[in-house]
Amino acid sequence: MERITARYYIETPYPVERAATVLAGEQSSGTFVAVPGETEELKNRFAARVEQIEHLETVAQPAIPGASSPDGLYRRAFVDVSWSAENFGHNLPTLVSTLQGNLYEITQFTGLKLMDIRFPESYANYYYGPRFGIDGCRELTATDIGKPLIGTIIKPSVGLTPAQTAETVGVLANAGIDFVKDDELMAATANSRFEDRVDAVMQVINRHADRTGKKIMYAFNISDEMEPMLRKYEHIVKSGGTCAMISLNSVGLSGTKRICDLGELAIHGHRNGWGMLNRHPLLGIEFPAYQKLWRLAGVDQLHVNGIQNKFWESDDSVVRSIASCLDHAPLDKPILPVVSSGQWGGQAFETYRRTKTTDLLYMAGGGIMAHPGGPAAGVAALQQAWEGAVNGLTLEEAARQYPEFGQSVEKFGNLQFDRA
Amino acid sequence: MERITARYYIETPYPVERAATVLAGEQSSGTFVAVPGETEELKNRFAARVEQIEHLETVAQPAIPGASSPDGLYRRAFVDVSWSAENFGHNLPTLVSTLQGNLYEITQFTGLKLMDIRFPESYANYYYGPRFGIDGCRELTATDIGKPLIGTIIKPSVGLTPAQTAETVGVLANAGIDFVKDDELMAATANSRFEDRVDAVMQVINRHADRTGKKIMYAFNISDEMEPMLRKYEHIVKSGGTCAMISLNSVGLSGTKRICDLGELAIHGHRNGWGMLNRHPLLGIEFPAYQKLWRLAGVDQLHVNGIQNKFWESDDSVVRSIASCLDHAPLDKPILPVVSSGQWGGQAFETYRRTKTTDLLYMAGGGIMAHPGGPAAGVAALQQAWEGAVNGLTLEEAARQYPEFGQSVEKFGNLQFDRA
Repeated sequence: MERITARYYIETPYPVERAATVLAGEQSSGTFVAVPGETEELKNRFAARVEQIEHLETVAQPAIPGASSPDGLYRRAFVDVSWSAENFGHNLPTLVSTLQGNLYEITQFTGLKLMDIRFPESYANYYYGPRFGIDGCRELTATDIGKPLIGTIIKPSVGLTPAQTAETVGVLANAGIDFVKDDELMAATANSRFEDRVDAVMQVINRHADRTGKKIMYAFNISDEMEPMLRKYEHIVKSGGTCAMISLNSVGLSGTKRICDLGELAIHGHRNGWGMLNRHPLLGIEFPAYQKLWRLAGVDQLHVNGIQNKFWESDDSVVRSIASCLDHAPLDKPILPVVSSGQWGGQAFETYRRTKTTDLLYMAGGGIMAHPGGPAAGVAALQQAWEGAVNGLTLEEAARQYPEFGQSVEKFGNLQFDRA
Repeated sequence: MERITARYYIETPYPVERAATVLAGEQSSGTFVAVPGETEELKNRFAARVEQIEHLETVAQPAIPGASSPDGLYRRAFVDVSWSAENFGHNLPTLVSTLQGNLYEITQFTGLKLMDIRFPESYANYYYGPRFGIDGCRELTATDIGKPLIGTIIKPSVGLTPAQTAETVGVLANAGIDFVKDDELMAATANSRFEDRVDAVMQVINRHADRTGKKIMYAFNISDEMEPMLRKYEHIVKSGGTCAMISLNSVGLSGTKRICDLGELAIHGHRNGWGMLNRHPLLGIEFPAYQKLWRLAGVDQLHVNGIQNKFWESDDSVVRSIASCLDHAPLDKPILPVVSSGQWGGQAFETYRRTKTTDLLYMAGGGIMAHPGGPAAGVAALQQAWEGAVNGLTLEEAARQYPEFGQSVEKFGNLQFDRA
């Protein structure tokens, strides 16, 4: 029988083996006294199994305050646990309840993070996954292989009218951009009805496409309750749009999969709320596990933050997340990583050096709109940065070779994100 | 214009006022350089506002490792921030993205927890909220005012066949129970198709209802992707069931609200995964904010853990959560608090002493099925414990007065949950 295996990073005040047994027990049997009907046969078929334990360091302070250890020590380890696919079948929410669920409540742990999930073969047959993915998004935007998709976010995040948004999109289209998106704060405001915004923006995009043959991808933020979300999706389709954006953590797995299953638009997965699930080193979920769940749900593009970003995340973590999106398991359908947060082109060199890929949606905000030569120069600067990075130039060499990128370096090169 | 106000518990290495301004800015404007179009008028209408700051203690170590303070100090405070309702209208997922979203990523915080949300009047008119709530669940189960609903969870969690589950339900029905539920790990297994389980269980429940006039409420776990969830819901309705259970965090807000909107079944909200969102004192979300979101979505019953539970949560926190469910804001429709985890009746006294309510769904597992006198004695013992608690008896007095509860005390009274 096929099994799903989860890897956890745990910390426990007790022997690791004992804590691991509690973990497996709680998530497949789980009560505090033996009950009738819990036969050996049933246990063999449905009980979770501790597959492997890798002991790590021991520390003197618990990662999550609260519990205290009898011997003053807290033991860390990687623990692999497996479940029979028979326990839940193809049901992503129940899979999540099984692999995460009450585990974070258990006193035997002073830290627990779901690191990764290994799915069996049958999942690749059952789940369609991303309809468009990297190749599809390149095709929809007519972006050549070997270049990242260059994108930006409409700013200010909230408050522009549809006409103002469309005007900005027109400027960006003429500037040669591949992708534009709503901010996650922008769904529909009192002065920007969703449908009006779609109509205004798509008129600009369709006209530009007629003229140039290039249809910009605009990720309209449809995040909402179920019925309005479906209605908004349909409105995008009817208007000739190619993409819808979902705030994954706010909408949730079932709602998101329902939308992905429609299959007519590329789905831009925004992970806002991610810090809550991930920022603590020993609580929550790591990106490899997270992206697999959303990949199975069918998300085409997923945020990974960026090198030298303005948030708390380390470059190492960003690099791992990009690799994880590009990894072929499960489904043999990679997700397009969305690189953003304080990007202006200067980070292209380090990003390429560390990831060796241009299969990225590379997002810059102020880096484009606030370029001293205007938005067209801003987009050109980003394209130049990537061309330079791929050709092995250093940032300094590229700044000398390309005038627009040179101006970017002058304006943004010494930019310290206001971390203070 | 109406405003939504959120209260945060924050920790910052910088002056609190500055961090609060960043919070408000990031969640309504948010880019690292000024952009054209960000006019004063637009800012006045859509910008978030810091309404109040309450300074708390200063500590020498950051709550979330990573950031470091210029002066070695980390300042804690409560911060109230408000947004115009115009920013998102009635759109719960976008409200969540605005009130939580990227906030957890910001380096200016070494801790951030959403404590509570204050909704304006119009929300009470727009959202229906719980269809059944406390009164409706009493009515559906014919449970008198002044007594908690007594419930239990089918164990073992996973692996029983529909016939075995139904047999257990029959025993529990005869024992006088009010409520039974699937475990959150149990959706549909290879040996228990959902529909077969509903049919088998509802046959027992309907027959019992015909005989006695009391229809037990069974919370069938419908947590799944959207289409199967709707199908399962319909199957419960057709079979005469009265309740469906959803793993809220796994299904998500949009999917859950879609189900609640159907309005034919009471919705049992399971909060598994909650520890990930709440266990750290300075990361995530507190229960008052959490329950309000699910109440607006329409959930009727919500888990709050229990006094002296087997998990990490303190009694104080459980008591606050119960009060929060029973609070009338928003919507003037309280949620029925679901008390569970290691409950056997002995906790009724402390629960009643601290909450002064019997508007509870009081769940015991082994406490019922493993009672030395059998399940009927187990249910009787729970009812006796509550009767005693309400009448002002101590546990010891109740144990002397009621034989079945006395047996419970003998068997479970010294039970130490295996915290080691």
